[in-house]
Amino acid sequence: MVLEKIDQLAREWLEEAGNRIFMALEQTNIEVEAKSDRNDLVTNVDKSTERYFAEKIAEHFPDHRLLGEEGYGEEITSLEGVIWVLDPIDGTVNFVEQKRNFAISLGIYKEGIGELAYIYDIIGGEFYFAKRGEGAFVNDVEIPKLSADKKLEDALVIINTAAMHKFPQTLAIIKEARGLRLYGAATLEYMAVATGRADAYISANLAPWDIGAGKIIAEEVGAIVTRVDGTPMTITEKGASFVASPGVHAEILRDYLGK
Amino acid sequence: MVLEKIDQLAREWLEEAGNRIFMALEQTNIEVEAKSDRNDLVTNVDKSTERYFAEKIAEHFPDHRLLGEEGYGEEITSLEGVIWVLDPIDGTVNFVEQKRNFAISLGIYKEGIGELAYIYDIIGGEFYFAKRGEGAFVNDVEIPKLSADKKLEDALVIINTAAMHKFPQTLAIIKEARGLRLYGAATLEYMAVATGRADAYISANLAPWDIGAGKIIAEEVGAIVTRVDGTPMTITEKGASFVASPGVHAEILRDYLGK
Repeated sequence: MVLEKIDQLAREWLEEAGNRIFMALEQTNIEVEAKSDRNDLVTNVDKSTERYFAEKIAEHFPDHRLLGEEGYGEEITSLEGVIWVLDPIDGTVNFVEQKRNFAISLGIYKEGIGELAYIYDIIGGEFYFAKRGEGAFVNDVEIPKLSADKKLEDALVIINTAAMHKFPQTLAIIKEARGLRLYGAATLEYMAVATGRADAYISANLAPWDIGAGKIIAEEVGAIVTRVDGTPMTITEKGASFVASPGVHAEILRDYLGK
Repeated sequence: MVLEKIDQLAREWLEEAGNRIFMALEQTNIEVEAKSDRNDLVTNVDKSTERYFAEKIAEHFPDHRLLGEEGYGEEITSLEGVIWVLDPIDGTVNFVEQKRNFAISLGIYKEGIGELAYIYDIIGGEFYFAKRGEGAFVNDVEIPKLSADKKLEDALVIINTAAMHKFPQTLAIIKEARGLRLYGAATLEYMAVATGRADAYISANLAPWDIGAGKIIAEEVGAIVTRVDGTPMTITEKGASFVASPGVHAEILRDYLGK
């Protein structure tokens, strides 16, 4: 019952936030600042979007907690209760440089279990959604389950440069694969795997808000989501991420990363 | 006068070819075969699209020549007369694996000079066009001229894995840049530079049909198109390609590739 109410309001707020971001892109008053390093950007739009969600959640669900990229939520150390895991703009460099290829990412966890997930590619016009046990959808069309038969030699892989440096075995994966792609937004790279546009995505360092929604959607279509060594990934900890269709995940772990 | 007629018919044929490709994607009878290596794919759709253009050109412009990827044109050694440079589907691996991120590419050269260019991203819904001296457009909106002020440290770069191997200096470029992107279709990577979504694109080995249209459109917005060592690129020869906005092109050549 409460999940239905959450779902209804989350969709309303995502639509409103999407409209505001779209309008901000039309204007030219986006203010950019660097955070931890020169490529870790935040804009006034990231901040105002997260603040919007923080206020709405506090108003409608005062006992829920927000785990967000920009600090309007709280420090989360336990997984009790309902947690909204939000990246107001995933792919901020793309947002600034390309004005596309970014997304709002929202995952909703209850007692540590991912229940609802939304990834909204505003410019691409793709709204991804999953509800645990009921499938994943893009613009209300169900995403087919991923095949377990794919082989790495026929696969497109997404491996970012940080992962190439941190895990040199990934270079052999790239050599074996059909091709390398890089889109610059973790949530959309998760969705590339979920929709079969790529078969594996390895990233050196993702935060909870990068994967909070993507993990739920990817798992709902049968993708395997782990750390790079194949161990389980919990969404409260930052770290490396390895998501792939089942056959390719097993092949990569057996022949490359598990060695 | 003849250019106006060519432009009118080229647009008609591109629209028809785009519709046929779109319908082919809806069906599931795409036949794939490998050409020179396992990732150099051709499908029945590539072939039928090129044959369609070959027949139309022969019918309406019997003295024009076609330089096409799939062999329905002719061997071109001189640049005399009018040459239609066609890639019926650029990004065939994307076409097969992703059903998006591919394009029809058509450049029209007269006595070796690029006069008209079209790149049609069918699924993305973006139709790029340029006429020599009259600017470049996407969906009839003029593309702004590229800035000469951009610096590599603020730039997104596109450098494919073959280029990383062939030109190891590119690894230092990637390290200095704001980020690396890879889309897997040369024409769309050219258009990323032309529209400012990226600032440089280096590829180890492009064919005339990969760059026939992209070069015209990119140059029309002020991008610099050369070989990797900065020498001029002629569209009849295969080889490495380096396109970038003017400031970034100069910086990369001075500090990395020209050394």
